[in-house]
Amino acid sequence: MTSDLERTPFPTDIEIAEAAEILPIADLARDRLGIPADALVPYGHTKAKVSLPFVASLADRPQGRLVLVTAMSPTPAGEGKTTTSVGLADGLSRLGERTVVALREPSMGPVFGIKGGAAGGGYAQVVPMTDINLHFTGDFAAIAAANNLLSALLDNHLHHGNALDIDPRTVTWKRVLDLNDRALREVVIGLGGTGNGVPREDGFDIVVASEVMAILCLASSLADLKRRLGDVVVAHTRAGAPVTARDLGAEGSMTVLLRDALAPNLVQTLEHTPAFVHGGPFANIAHGANSVMATRAALGLADWVVTEAGFGADLGAEKFVDITCRLSGLRPDVVVVVATVRALKYHGGVAVGDLAVEDLGALEKGMANLRRHLHNVRDVFGLTPVVAVNRFPTDTDAEVDAVVRMSGDEGVAAYAATHVVDGGAGAEALARGVVDAVAAGTSEMTFVYPDELPLADKVEAVATAVYGADGVTFAPAARKALARIEAEGHGRLPVCIAKTQSSFSTDPTLRGAPEGHTVDVREVRLSAGAGFVVAITGSVLTMPGLPREPAASRIDVDDDGRIVGLS
Amino acid sequence: MTSDLERTPFPTDIEIAEAAEILPIADLARDRLGIPADALVPYGHTKAKVSLPFVASLADRPQGRLVLVTAMSPTPAGEGKTTTSVGLADGLSRLGERTVVALREPSMGPVFGIKGGAAGGGYAQVVPMTDINLHFTGDFAAIAAANNLLSALLDNHLHHGNALDIDPRTVTWKRVLDLNDRALREVVIGLGGTGNGVPREDGFDIVVASEVMAILCLASSLADLKRRLGDVVVAHTRAGAPVTARDLGAEGSMTVLLRDALAPNLVQTLEHTPAFVHGGPFANIAHGANSVMATRAALGLADWVVTEAGFGADLGAEKFVDITCRLSGLRPDVVVVVATVRALKYHGGVAVGDLAVEDLGALEKGMANLRRHLHNVRDVFGLTPVVAVNRFPTDTDAEVDAVVRMSGDEGVAAYAATHVVDGGAGAEALARGVVDAVAAGTSEMTFVYPDELPLADKVEAVATAVYGADGVTFAPAARKALARIEAEGHGRLPVCIAKTQSSFSTDPTLRGAPEGHTVDVREVRLSAGAGFVVAITGSVLTMPGLPREPAASRIDVDDDGRIVGLS
Repeated sequence: MTSDLERTPFPTDIEIAEAAEILPIADLARDRLGIPADALVPYGHTKAKVSLPFVASLADRPQGRLVLVTAMSPTPAGEGKTTTSVGLADGLSRLGERTVVALREPSMGPVFGIKGGAAGGGYAQVVPMTDINLHFTGDFAAIAAANNLLSALLDNHLHHGNALDIDPRTVTWKRVLDLNDRALREVVIGLGGTGNGVPREDGFDIVVASEVMAILCLASSLADLKRRLGDVVVAHTRAGAPVTARDLGAEGSMTVLLRDALAPNLVQTLEHTPAFVHGGPFANIAHGANSVMATRAALGLADWVVTEAGFGADLGAEKFVDITCRLSGLRPDVVVVVATVRALKYHGGVAVGDLAVEDLGALEKGMANLRRHLHNVRDVFGLTPVVAVNRFPTDTDAEVDAVVRMSGDEGVAAYAATHVVDGGAGAEALARGVVDAVAAGTSEMTFVYPDELPLADKVEAVATAVYGADGVTFAPAARKALARIEAEGHGRLPVCIAKTQSSFSTDPTLRGAPEGHTVDVREVRLSAGAGFVVAITGSVLTMPGLPREPAASRIDVDDDGRIVGLS
Repeated sequence: MTSDLERTPFPTDIEIAEAAEILPIADLARDRLGIPADALVPYGHTKAKVSLPFVASLADRPQGRLVLVTAMSPTPAGEGKTTTSVGLADGLSRLGERTVVALREPSMGPVFGIKGGAAGGGYAQVVPMTDINLHFTGDFAAIAAANNLLSALLDNHLHHGNALDIDPRTVTWKRVLDLNDRALREVVIGLGGTGNGVPREDGFDIVVASEVMAILCLASSLADLKRRLGDVVVAHTRAGAPVTARDLGAEGSMTVLLRDALAPNLVQTLEHTPAFVHGGPFANIAHGANSVMATRAALGLADWVVTEAGFGADLGAEKFVDITCRLSGLRPDVVVVVATVRALKYHGGVAVGDLAVEDLGALEKGMANLRRHLHNVRDVFGLTPVVAVNRFPTDTDAEVDAVVRMSGDEGVAAYAATHVVDGGAGAEALARGVVDAVAAGTSEMTFVYPDELPLADKVEAVATAVYGADGVTFAPAARKALARIEAEGHGRLPVCIAKTQSSFSTDPTLRGAPEGHTVDVREVRLSAGAGFVVAITGSVLTMPGLPREPAASRIDVDDDGRIVGLS
């Protein structure tokens, strides 16, 4: 295989995507996955939802192997989990394996904010790229509608006499929009007199931060979705009792709004590997993995399913194990840890501006970061790691070889991959390595903590075992919230820790594999519908802002109706 | 034809809709309209968008006849314009005429608020009913996204230095949601410190009230859509100059968000008459008709196109003539004025609770209302009116006969129609009457006022000629706004008067055909993108509230995934 890493000028993502030949989705579904036409709900000719009854029927079939793609602690630019997931899936397809990749849906907030899309990049993309990055099949709009209907019903209850005696100051349920809009972070609503409801403080989150998004991603059926939506706690009464969506009579209508959204979306990679792109919860205040419905459907349809978890393995993989797997019964057969020469040098102390310069010393030093992730995957989660070195044009052969060698020293196979420029061909070696690792069959997943551990101890278990911290502190309000959540009967839930992805610690500037640090939990939130308790360290922004020069000002439609400016 | 007006218990709308046989939309499009598969973008199997290039190609074809359905001044419950439009279209189809009905899309606000759907009723419905009433093809979500992206870009501009020197107190552009949510009518945003933007007063409207909705409905092409979006005025600078969406660099991204939404949605009636259901602007602060794209597409595909205009003929038909026709070039060939025995008795002074009791005296008295509408249609708009008596089970034969006779006395043909219980068969006589009226060929549409008349005089022209008012007054702020709008170069735009639909006057309690009244314009707003100036009389609610017992608490999904509780 000849790599064309040096090819210049390299086309943009949208140029590659627009030039792609996309198979009719009905043909792809039938030919590659045996999905009959009546199980497919088309959205245009290249996107479809797979019907819920058909997805349910797949449970009895032999299940495929699950490959979880995660990463070392990334540089601010990210290390290419999505492209590696796509490339690996295409690589597996090239080996003749029946493969599906299952990814998260992009949010429109970033599309019009910093950069363009989130459907992979280069020759490792899912298509139709512009559709996936914009309204797609309407899932995010449906989630927003369900989320905001609950808000409207809550405020309507306050307006019409407040029979439940809700304390308006305790409302934790926020409204959402799929936009970056900082001015909506903190607002006061209900102004303008008695006809306009009850004034109170409120705020808007971005859709991916909604608990409804997490619920959609964890629901196993329409009935389970409805039960979870009903369980959502939105506020407390003046007497201190929790108020749920069920108390407000909201869960039926919310389920109606989400009925179509629950069905997984089927698209394809540039190389025609089937791709489920479904759900996209935040990876800090939520579990950060695509929908269980989609992953389950994929496992019933394919021999290999590649999925990704948000952020680094300390966050995404830990949550995949302790939340997604615990709640869904899914079990990964192998874990691909994406590493880059760039990120290793970054963790070895190199400044962001100097990452293109060869530096074997820094690389070796930064290996401490990858090493701890590999240790976590193997010794804490009990899973088999494989390293994917996502190769960048500036990486030298010596650097790439060093990563492979040092991973080998840890007993972990590592493979350089060039899928971004070469497509699936660039990930064939990685794909073979993944197949070999699964054949070795040593994975025996274990949770980091058992259900019955108190919530505070669960946080401590993750902090010490996964983050390498000495211990955990809880702010008084967090301590109080934990006590209340346990008193309300949610003590057996897993914890979802919101932490910077840039470091094992809560300090984003601590690179490598920091030790002796403390994890300070500032705030605790209950996501009773999703089924976890969020422990927040540091600051978490649930509604991003637009930059000074937003991408929105460059995105346009040309005279032929073609979208330009999406990168 | 045997009518089964007495049939009891009559099934609910959703029961009728769910029991309906729905043809695959691709078959219907091909067989009934000759639309090729590649011009159709499916959304599921029973909904589709017709591609914009195909719609554009229809302009050169022979154009069908346009039937505008409007109504006398309605009772609070409405008199059945949508059901009559559907029934008439089915009636025309039964006569062997190639017919399309073009309707507005329902808003989800009322669906979860007072009652269920707005896709017709009884045996005069468009299907799939639940889809049309919920997310449908995502148009409303796209409009909300485009509207709210403009808001985010505006507040982002204020946050990042405000180079345009926008006065935040002058912002007139509101955010929108497709929900009834009174608590969002008046809000304060940008709270929480310097990181969260600039604090200012703001508010949310329902999506159908967005100028973006009106723009989508009036745009003739993607390029025209983009131009109109760019023209939207969102605020003024401190120096008093208007600030447009174009100044904020927003129109390209807004157009991208609306590209798919601009293509008309094709569905069908219960009797398989093709139906475009596309766009749904408010009928008070906007023109209240479905999209020009859909109506134009229909005229290129069918011999008969039935469309409706919101509210009574004083509002909907006037706006259809003076705004929609003026801006689009459309010309109705005939106007169906829907009347009911119930509404006639209401305008004859009968209380709402007594409308089921035969009262020929009140009926005759209430005829004054219908008479003035017929006069307006014929003598002011220059169009041929036909009366459709939308028959209710409680109407007596004597009452229905009286309406037909009294209409005849005015020289207007009238036909009783029972489409709600009988489907198209119940509107066959009406359909024949419509065909006859068009054959007579006397329509020669005229606008109520010319472009060059000053804005205030345009309002006065409508008030005196159409409403029968003695004159118009303008509040000082309205007078000032008119002057500024004219100074800014928008004096040639048509006016869009927001007025109660319950009376020719601005007082909803003045029934019949009031005279000697005055129209007081309280407020004036510019919709520069849509292309009209709104003159508001009385109070206009652009964000409804939910009732004490919202429909949302009854809407649910049953164990088979079927939606229940939508009426």
